[in-house]
Amino acid sequence: MQDNQFVKEIADIETNYPQWYTDVVLKAELADYGPVKGTMVIRPYGYAIWENIQKELDRQFKRTGHQNAYFPMLFPYSYLTREKEHVEGFAPEVAVVTYAGGEELSEKLVLRPTSETVICNMFSKWVKSYRDLPVKINQWANVVRWEKTTRPFLRTSEFLWQEGHTLHDTVEEARAETLQMLRVYEDVVTNFLAIPAIVGKKTEKEKFAGAVDTYSIETMTRDGKSLQSGTSHYLGQNFTKAFDIRYQNREGQFVYPEQTSWGVSTRLIGALICAHGDQRGLALPPKIAPIQVILVPITLKNDGLVAFCKDLNTKLQDAGIRAEIDLSDNSAGFKFNKYELKGVPLRLEIGNRDLDNGVVTYCRRDTLEKGTLSIENIENQIIKLLDEIQANMLRIATEKTNSHIIDVDNREDLVKTVNAGNFVRVTWCGDRACEEKLKDETAITSRCMPFDQTGKKNICACCGKKLKDGEGYITLFAKSY
Amino acid sequence: MQDNQFVKEIADIETNYPQWYTDVVLKAELADYGPVKGTMVIRPYGYAIWENIQKELDRQFKRTGHQNAYFPMLFPYSYLTREKEHVEGFAPEVAVVTYAGGEELSEKLVLRPTSETVICNMFSKWVKSYRDLPVKINQWANVVRWEKTTRPFLRTSEFLWQEGHTLHDTVEEARAETLQMLRVYEDVVTNFLAIPAIVGKKTEKEKFAGAVDTYSIETMTRDGKSLQSGTSHYLGQNFTKAFDIRYQNREGQFVYPEQTSWGVSTRLIGALICAHGDQRGLALPPKIAPIQVILVPITLKNDGLVAFCKDLNTKLQDAGIRAEIDLSDNSAGFKFNKYELKGVPLRLEIGNRDLDNGVVTYCRRDTLEKGTLSIENIENQIIKLLDEIQANMLRIATEKTNSHIIDVDNREDLVKTVNAGNFVRVTWCGDRACEEKLKDETAITSRCMPFDQTGKKNICACCGKKLKDGEGYITLFAKSY
Repeated sequence: MQDNQFVKEIADIETNYPQWYTDVVLKAELADYGPVKGTMVIRPYGYAIWENIQKELDRQFKRTGHQNAYFPMLFPYSYLTREKEHVEGFAPEVAVVTYAGGEELSEKLVLRPTSETVICNMFSKWVKSYRDLPVKINQWANVVRWEKTTRPFLRTSEFLWQEGHTLHDTVEEARAETLQMLRVYEDVVTNFLAIPAIVGKKTEKEKFAGAVDTYSIETMTRDGKSLQSGTSHYLGQNFTKAFDIRYQNREGQFVYPEQTSWGVSTRLIGALICAHGDQRGLALPPKIAPIQVILVPITLKNDGLVAFCKDLNTKLQDAGIRAEIDLSDNSAGFKFNKYELKGVPLRLEIGNRDLDNGVVTYCRRDTLEKGTLSIENIENQIIKLLDEIQANMLRIATEKTNSHIIDVDNREDLVKTVNAGNFVRVTWCGDRACEEKLKDETAITSRCMPFDQTGKKNICACCGKKLKDGEGYITLFAKSY
Repeated sequence: MQDNQFVKEIADIETNYPQWYTDVVLKAELADYGPVKGTMVIRPYGYAIWENIQKELDRQFKRTGHQNAYFPMLFPYSYLTREKEHVEGFAPEVAVVTYAGGEELSEKLVLRPTSETVICNMFSKWVKSYRDLPVKINQWANVVRWEKTTRPFLRTSEFLWQEGHTLHDTVEEARAETLQMLRVYEDVVTNFLAIPAIVGKKTEKEKFAGAVDTYSIETMTRDGKSLQSGTSHYLGQNFTKAFDIRYQNREGQFVYPEQTSWGVSTRLIGALICAHGDQRGLALPPKIAPIQVILVPITLKNDGLVAFCKDLNTKLQDAGIRAEIDLSDNSAGFKFNKYELKGVPLRLEIGNRDLDNGVVTYCRRDTLEKGTLSIENIENQIIKLLDEIQANMLRIATEKTNSHIIDVDNREDLVKTVNAGNFVRVTWCGDRACEEKLKDETAITSRCMPFDQTGKKNICACCGKKLKDGEGYITLFAKSY
């Protein structure tokens, strides 16, 4: 196995994980820092990953009956204040336009941190009758949240996301929608990004500002921290009442509809980096890799070999494989390193001797294993290999994640285990004060209460409180990015 | 031909065109007004048109070697001032963030009105060698330009667009890129939106702030005004010098690259409304219509008929046709009107008697002609019919546009002809002062200097100045939105 020059240029993943992360983002040309502190430029390679994620999500949103729309990014500051919890959650981090078109504005305008309020304002005009329900809208957009500590993809002042917003006739339908979209996220994260998704309900403290219930998918970083990678909210009538959205139901009464919202963002690219990267850089699962197969001719001096490689590239592209060929004047070794850094799932190394023997050499990014493929019917062998890589990456990531979710039953073990780079699974009393005390003292937070609540004990692992039958929740705690 | 109830609800297209336009936008549910003056909500039906436009443009951008990326929407105000003409053009209409994350900002931030400056700032970090060229990037984004007079799709404070930004080694390559992308726009506007595109070069007065040369496609509204529907700029080294983007060329010298930028926006939806609408509302060409065929069962009381309609809908969808069925409890007549208002190219009216005879009745939106189709092999008949509608819509729009481009040779005729709802084609001296005087006195502006310059005379139709051989330009003048 050859050395990779980038290994030395990237910080050590074991001892300096945060710097490793930043190095990979910059060196793989996924993103760069924007001119304003906390902003990010998504470079073409990073954006191509986002396009692949978007494509699959958008397909699933449409399959489940949602339509895309676009709402203004600027709305009056007063909208934010209509829902009490919502303003408390978002006011500290909004950016405000005070001046436009050459003059001071009479009313300050907010750059959307999320669009519940501006969308509810429109819903109140559009929804009059039960015939207008359900409303199932999604928006692809940029949002702005002014954060103190930022990191590309994981937390930036501006990021790209989608936000779904729906209205329903009944509580049951709205709750079913909330869970359906959570399952869409789980499916995409698991089966496309090859990341094990930890799914559950947020505690009162951690839920969305204005929601009745928030559900999330959490993913684990290599250093055992949690990334909240997608959320789905049942909003009840909190916003529909605040914005006076009323409709006439089948019985002729004027009532408030039930509401949901749900979103994932470019943070998913951060989750990908964290789930699969190694000392050589990024590793991408084939289903979302912008380049699935990179073809590297060992020499450019043999015209026959170059022509063969070009034909092979076209053949693979015609078979629906995202193949590319690197004919730059860099050395073959440099190219091997470069595409390992960029996480391309499969590399074909094509030399004169291979060509004579009717085979090509491949190298898998996930295992770094090499092997040979016969030229005959190579497309199908590659499609099979890509499927294997996809499945293997999920298997490896799942094993890693599962081995870092540890059951504990007392606070000392909780803190020690989390600080050693793990999630803990505990019985927790459910008191907000208990959770807040833990966070203040240790920076450890609840991540979610998983749907599987088996194994609940009769004592809170966090505060030691005795619990009656039915009290308390199985809960995951961890540190988070 | 049945009456359409919406005919009465929409302002008269002949006598009150601006109100007709607004009525169609709102009643066809393409867009609605946002809460802040000048902003717009793009509703699902309008957004679906935008998605179809995006899909075709994005395909052509990628085919011509461009990659998508995303740059921050906020950048320091000082960036705007680096290129002298650029700041003069854009400073009056920018929106400015002065407050974020709970505190006054030390440097004011601009919401992008266009991204040349922030992108050039990044290019200056990325481009070091001729090996890094060409750079061919596109961005899909929202932009903000604070306008006094607004109208949905045509001019709004925030709008959606794409902006291409490229860097090249030579003037020739950059100029070729500028014209290539102009031709992409012309192709999409002509062959997908079925709108005749008037293509040419902008005058010095009308070009983009910071460009060496601007080319545009203009489209004509029903009242004979011009919509600038796409622009492509050759920027030369104006920005690369202002942002100190230098690279080492093949000879080892440090030089400034040549640059282009180009964009189209959601204004194209406005162009569509203007080009094809009539007293019944919108009319959409099949290639970009979100619904190409609407199926209306004449009665819902016959289960066999409803089942037949559903099967037919599935059959058409399976054939790749964007078909939908309306099974709501509205009357068939209401549905006919509704989908005419929404501009659906083809309606199938399916009744009991038709079913018995093995035929269905159709009605074309473009001609309002009715006819019958046999059930057998109906998909292919419909695909053929949609192609015919597409071609017919372009033919009709082209005839209409051509009949309103009139040659004149003196100022009196110029003003009279434009005020009667036409473009004029004249010989113009090329003096900025001549153009400005005309605009100040009559609100008539130059639209472009077409590539075809045949028929040039030796006197300026606008100011009467005598021209020497080679002086002056064939130029189109009109009023514009």
